Amino acid sequence: MSKGRLDKIDVAEKFGLFTQQWQGKVVAEMNGMYVKLARLEGEFIPHTHEAEDEMFYVLDGELTMRLPDRDVTVGPGQFIVVPRGVEHMPVCPRETKIMLIEPKETVNTGDADSERRVEPEWI
Amino acid sequence: MSKGRLDKIDVAEKFGLFTQQWQGKVVAEMNGMYVKLARLEGEFIPHTHEAEDEMFYVLDGELTMRLPDRDVTVGPGQFIVVPRGVEHMPVCPRETKIMLIEPKETVNTGDADSERRVEPEWI
Repeated sequence: MSKGRLDKIDVAEKFGLFTQQWQGKVVAEMNGMYVKLARLEGEFIPHTHEAEDEMFYVLDGELTMRLPDRDVTVGPGQFIVVPRGVEHMPVCPRETKIMLIEPKETVNTGDADSERRVEPEWI
Repeated sequence: MSKGRLDKIDVAEKFGLFTQQWQGKVVAEMNGMYVKLARLEGEFIPHTHEAEDEMFYVLDGELTMRLPDRDVTVGPGQFIVVPRGVEHMPVCPRETKIMLIEPKETVNTGDADSERRVEPEWI
């Protein structure tokens, strides 16, 4: 698929197209990776991606990434890369908008067996 | 190298570390790609990357991507992905701050033989 390529992508406009939380929506792809937008609020589940690094760029709100040994809190204009193999648990005290960049085959729940698993959807 | 991994990266703080234009500075890596920050102003050279897609996310300012058949102008909170094989020429009427995500092996001048070629530098 090449949807979105060579068009300008307006992040705010894309956020206007969905309200679901914890469901990253695909807005572009490049080099086998998806660029996703997501609304996060509350706690996700701790999980690990064995083969994929993930970049979480915060656009609005506040994201705390709970790591095995510490928490890292990320605000607007900041990001964190969680390398493959590192357990992490995203937590947001209020609704937080992020841009998430990860390989196309990344499963949102990683190695966790969870009903919160969703398939990527283009918007 | 894993510099920057699992630390929070503050984009504004990183921009305070350099003033050079047209020299993307590496602030993170993931999945074989670099996350770079760059200051652009004026015209770059038309060039093509045969094997790499590039994502240009505008943080501040205005970037016009001159493509073979049209121009696409991108502002803050917007981005464009230029797929491999497509000639492009970035032009910025004033200093523009961008986040650039591309494979680590990407050469900034692509297939063009230019004195404007620079090597990636971590900050």
